[in-house]
Amino acid sequence: MAVYTDVSAEQLAEFLSGYSLGELLSYKGIAEGVENSNYLVHTTSGYVLLTLFEKRVKASDLPFFIGLMEHLATRGLNCPLPVKNRSGEALGTLAGRPAVVVTFLEGMSMRRPTAAHCEALGEALAQLHNAGEGFSITRVNALSMPGWRPLYDMAGHERANTLRAGLGDTVAFELDHLEKEWPRNLPAGVIHADLFPDNVFFLGDKLSGLIDFYFACNDMLAYDVAICLNAWCFETDASFNVTKGRALLQGYQSVRPLSAAEQEALPILARGAALRFLLTRLVDWLNVPPGALVRPHDPLEYFRKLRHHQRATTARDYGLGA
Amino acid sequence: MAVYTDVSAEQLAEFLSGYSLGELLSYKGIAEGVENSNYLVHTTSGYVLLTLFEKRVKASDLPFFIGLMEHLATRGLNCPLPVKNRSGEALGTLAGRPAVVVTFLEGMSMRRPTAAHCEALGEALAQLHNAGEGFSITRVNALSMPGWRPLYDMAGHERANTLRAGLGDTVAFELDHLEKEWPRNLPAGVIHADLFPDNVFFLGDKLSGLIDFYFACNDMLAYDVAICLNAWCFETDASFNVTKGRALLQGYQSVRPLSAAEQEALPILARGAALRFLLTRLVDWLNVPPGALVRPHDPLEYFRKLRHHQRATTARDYGLGA
Repeated sequence: MAVYTDVSAEQLAEFLSGYSLGELLSYKGIAEGVENSNYLVHTTSGYVLLTLFEKRVKASDLPFFIGLMEHLATRGLNCPLPVKNRSGEALGTLAGRPAVVVTFLEGMSMRRPTAAHCEALGEALAQLHNAGEGFSITRVNALSMPGWRPLYDMAGHERANTLRAGLGDTVAFELDHLEKEWPRNLPAGVIHADLFPDNVFFLGDKLSGLIDFYFACNDMLAYDVAICLNAWCFETDASFNVTKGRALLQGYQSVRPLSAAEQEALPILARGAALRFLLTRLVDWLNVPPGALVRPHDPLEYFRKLRHHQRATTARDYGLGA
Repeated sequence: MAVYTDVSAEQLAEFLSGYSLGELLSYKGIAEGVENSNYLVHTTSGYVLLTLFEKRVKASDLPFFIGLMEHLATRGLNCPLPVKNRSGEALGTLAGRPAVVVTFLEGMSMRRPTAAHCEALGEALAQLHNAGEGFSITRVNALSMPGWRPLYDMAGHERANTLRAGLGDTVAFELDHLEKEWPRNLPAGVIHADLFPDNVFFLGDKLSGLIDFYFACNDMLAYDVAICLNAWCFETDASFNVTKGRALLQGYQSVRPLSAAEQEALPILARGAALRFLLTRLVDWLNVPPGALVRPHDPLEYFRKLRHHQRATTARDYGLGA
């Protein structure tokens, strides 16, 4: 939640003069997204969102992100559509940063999603997976299984144990286990990879849009389902709400049925997804720079979720077919 | 620039159900204001701004601030107008904070105001002073001359000298000088007291609105002019741009001519205004809490401005009648 790059009215007016968006009326830096700077911009033709990509986003990934949003939006998914400038380019430069203007989506993210929200999320996730078919650019998931051990080495075993006794040992055990058991050959395609409640807008119970495609990549589709089970179906006391899990999976399967192999793999994928967020949060937690403007997320939330997954044995434990 | 209090969609929808503003469509925490949390809220009836007052604002001051905006807006000043709820109240409670909804103003603050912007600012400041007449609530300016020595004691003489050699001694000298020479009996009324470029919106060269009345109080009107001379007419190298000063004063006097006594007092008022911002910035600078989300402003900017004012002798040095 931050605005890292300050843009002056003069700079922004100059930048927008390259677009067919009319005159600038106002703009506000908004507290959305942890990786980039975002401005809500009002012009005589309406509201758009301006994103400046900060250092953590690789410039070489931008054609994938921008192309993907175009691909998905033109296939009817409710997601931001990049706006092209008069030269036909969606990617520009502003204040020394790569910058993109996208359409503004109405709606609000839910702090405490209900089972109905989870069902709608499941449907939208499957629609995203179907809509991603035929997208020609690919992007490796740097945060999939092979990336976890390097992340853990970065965090450090001893430092992990200082955060909570036994945390380091649990992670070391999980890494060994997942490296052996991680599924291969499941249906793959474009995944969102970060579809937390923050990134899903609702108007009432109706899902109105998906945002923040800046972790999207190619990976197993069912891994995206497992990420969502982690992000949407636990209560604040770390208990898994199987009613929400069932709703999410029913919503998903109403659009894209999971294969038998995908269903069987759900528990191990959920374990891996929990470890992935535990590890990135751990690294962020142990490396907060002095004077940081962003508070890191609590890694222990995902430690508790991981413990839950270690006890699950079949997809029924997540509400599938139950 | 921060959002201190997080508001959920559920909380906000419940709060807005007390207003005649239609259905909530979206809301964004915006990076505006250093004392409060601000959200830009879109409902089926349009855009409004929601402010949650954080601890630094005294609850007992809120009727003054809200009443003043109503008073000024109904007298034609372009400033936010508090929106009343169905019970006729402008002040409500949200997420445990006093909260107010105000009308949204278009326009952008200028990073590098031109002389034309300074002239428009001068006019608007005088309009504000005239429009403030007849407002029945009063609020003492806690940051006027009698408040400066306590602020300096809070910063500490030795700590001030550590920031820059001689800074503490200069401040100590100024305090003695200003306590002796500070004008009394100049025309007084409601002043904005913080009308920096951040708080003034333009559409092109046309001033479209004044915002952030949360330092407003009763004090000498010419002191507000002196604050603006400090905030608008220095270049980044701390040189005073007399063309901008002249434009600001001409704009002001085209609406409300300064009396001979006010003109004569301008240099000492400008000195005091520089010291006031130097002192509050110094206190903030020396007291940044660990993990702070806001970077304090540089106190030395106002030290350099103060040095300029120490060399000025008459209002002609600020462009008056020149």
